Amino acid sequence: MAQRDGPGPVGIVGAGQLARMLCEAASPLDVPTVVLAEAMTDAAVATATEVVPGVPGSFEDLVSLASGAAVVTFDHEQVDLALLRRLEADGKAVRPSAEALTLAVNKATMRERLDRAGVAVPAYEVLGHKGASWQDGVRPALEAFGEAHRWPLVLKAARGGYDGRGVWVVSDVGAAEGVWRRAEETSTVLLVEEHVAIEEELAVQVAVGPSGELKAWPAVETVQRDGVCREVLCGSLPEPVARAAVEVALSVARMSGVVGTLAVELFSSAGRLLVNELAMRPHNSGHWSIEGAVTSQFENHLRAVLGLPLGSTEALGPAVASVNVFGNQAADNPAHHLGDALSVSGAHVHLYGKAPRPGRKLGHVTVVGDDLAEVRRRAWRAAELLGTPVTEELGRR
Amino acid sequence: MAQRDGPGPVGIVGAGQLARMLCEAASPLDVPTVVLAEAMTDAAVATATEVVPGVPGSFEDLVSLASGAAVVTFDHEQVDLALLRRLEADGKAVRPSAEALTLAVNKATMRERLDRAGVAVPAYEVLGHKGASWQDGVRPALEAFGEAHRWPLVLKAARGGYDGRGVWVVSDVGAAEGVWRRAEETSTVLLVEEHVAIEEELAVQVAVGPSGELKAWPAVETVQRDGVCREVLCGSLPEPVARAAVEVALSVARMSGVVGTLAVELFSSAGRLLVNELAMRPHNSGHWSIEGAVTSQFENHLRAVLGLPLGSTEALGPAVASVNVFGNQAADNPAHHLGDALSVSGAHVHLYGKAPRPGRKLGHVTVVGDDLAEVRRRAWRAAELLGTPVTEELGRR
Repeated sequence: MAQRDGPGPVGIVGAGQLARMLCEAASPLDVPTVVLAEAMTDAAVATATEVVPGVPGSFEDLVSLASGAAVVTFDHEQVDLALLRRLEADGKAVRPSAEALTLAVNKATMRERLDRAGVAVPAYEVLGHKGASWQDGVRPALEAFGEAHRWPLVLKAARGGYDGRGVWVVSDVGAAEGVWRRAEETSTVLLVEEHVAIEEELAVQVAVGPSGELKAWPAVETVQRDGVCREVLCGSLPEPVARAAVEVALSVARMSGVVGTLAVELFSSAGRLLVNELAMRPHNSGHWSIEGAVTSQFENHLRAVLGLPLGSTEALGPAVASVNVFGNQAADNPAHHLGDALSVSGAHVHLYGKAPRPGRKLGHVTVVGDDLAEVRRRAWRAAELLGTPVTEELGRR
Repeated sequence: MAQRDGPGPVGIVGAGQLARMLCEAASPLDVPTVVLAEAMTDAAVATATEVVPGVPGSFEDLVSLASGAAVVTFDHEQVDLALLRRLEADGKAVRPSAEALTLAVNKATMRERLDRAGVAVPAYEVLGHKGASWQDGVRPALEAFGEAHRWPLVLKAARGGYDGRGVWVVSDVGAAEGVWRRAEETSTVLLVEEHVAIEEELAVQVAVGPSGELKAWPAVETVQRDGVCREVLCGSLPEPVARAAVEVALSVARMSGVVGTLAVELFSSAGRLLVNELAMRPHNSGHWSIEGAVTSQFENHLRAVLGLPLGSTEALGPAVASVNVFGNQAADNPAHHLGDALSVSGAHVHLYGKAPRPGRKLGHVTVVGDDLAEVRRRAWRAAELLGTPVTEELGRR
């Protein structure tokens, strides 16, 4: 397959819904895709041109993927950068590069490098350097930090986390010690951060080509509950905030060395815009672009990693709402309710083909229009018809 | 696969570019597709969930396709209606039905039934009934028809044709006799029609649900050269003509018994709107709807044949141009020039993955915008960069 005529194939590490939608964007361009899938039930198995069974932690599997691909890119960040560096040393094109990915996979590195580059981030301090002692090093550092920024504070694992979590809000030194002790046991590096009084959570996608070409989509508002993104709104942010967020995201894109789509997640708080997270791949906060923008984050990610010119990122309407579809307590299959959801005017339904489980992200719905309240109402209605649990607070404001 | 949870699978007779784009539309809805493919190089083989190798003329192959599908639909009309009736008698859902397809596959039936239903068609007469003799039957009929409608006249094969052709413009009885003799040899039924002084060629797509739900897309202008559609424009027709064409198409849809997307091709001539051709499937004249309308002809075809509610057919901009990509004399591969084409702002490129041959339809490009001249200029530019031969007359007016 590597001797192919046109651009590609694109090899994708991971086969989740992001890979699935990358494959969907590749098809009209006739760009073949190869996914590295841990299980044949993975979302992208049905849409990829070719499937390489394997795991991202195996160099052999990465080599199998790369051997059938013109370029290797990613569905997620659970990658071993050392293995990617070996792949690069073997002459394989990896986009974004292992070097660029450092910024996305390690929160300590990310905070330090953004801070140094003059990008505003929450006040932070890296706590967990090897050999640091609680009594003589960490505790006094936390006390001083708490003095400066007030309790509660936020502790974060620099990479991954443990017990399925990576973020803890702690109200005093005692609570912090509990988190620290477990982190020490699992050799998890911790950061402490100020607890930002978030007014809005925002995200900006930027596509970056290998020669530095940049295209930013409009800034969107993301609505999170329990650490999970529930909806994404394009057209809700005050214009100056949206513009400033795009400027910040472009600065991050320029200093990041990324090739592909970069997602920059930000907080707005007391007149400040602070960068919270980065992802160097298509991201849930950019799904609205499939129907809501001239070119989607998926198509531009492919174009970028293949070295093709980037497409316009202009929004196709003044208001776009994208609402995530989650499994409900009954683990009802949203596919059973497709007809109900499609009866909602303008509802673009995406189902990822994943087995329904309570709380699992199973799809999303996008509506584009002129009136934000109206597109939100319809997107929430379709998501609810698909079985997504909806509270009074969410989706009805 | 037939015991599946959600809607589908959809079985498609044929695996050309229309099937390919049906599969692309099915993927976000997580509707599986099965295509009946004559060759593994067929355009839809890369995008279908499953492939059944076979030909539409084999009942066994049709049964294989239908056994894995909740409903059987079509990529083309080269089907044997008797075989489809057997499939229906076996309890298989065939949409559109064999009965409805009669109208699309036989020009004599189509003209007669539309005429009877009060839909304006070009003046015509069926010539080739079995046993008709040239000297005593056909020749006098042609002479009388020529007297009434003036030479030249148009001869058409009711189904298919011979020597790769199905339409002949004849200037006198002598020329007509040549066509008739060849038709007689190949048992081809012929119609004679008036030679319409075409001012514009138009098309309207209508999606029809099983319970009679109807959604028409806006009427489009189609630009043909040498019997081949070169471009499709949405937004170029005078409003009253566009509206009248939609009304005609809706009448045809109502009397046709079709379930799925119906394409109605019309001529506008001296203040008349005449129905020329019907297709009961997605059609080249509706490709603009992928990026140019809220719901594409492909998605609505799937929704219709699955009995799901139809989506809005509203156009997403005042001007949409869709230009077909053809192989040039050098049989250059358009995939080699993808980067050039994607550098054209707003160009949505579709390549069908077909082996390039001179004159072969290999893809299309759609541009959506506010100004018709501008979207046309850009769509033609991208098509030209992909290797499509462009004359002064085409694409530069």
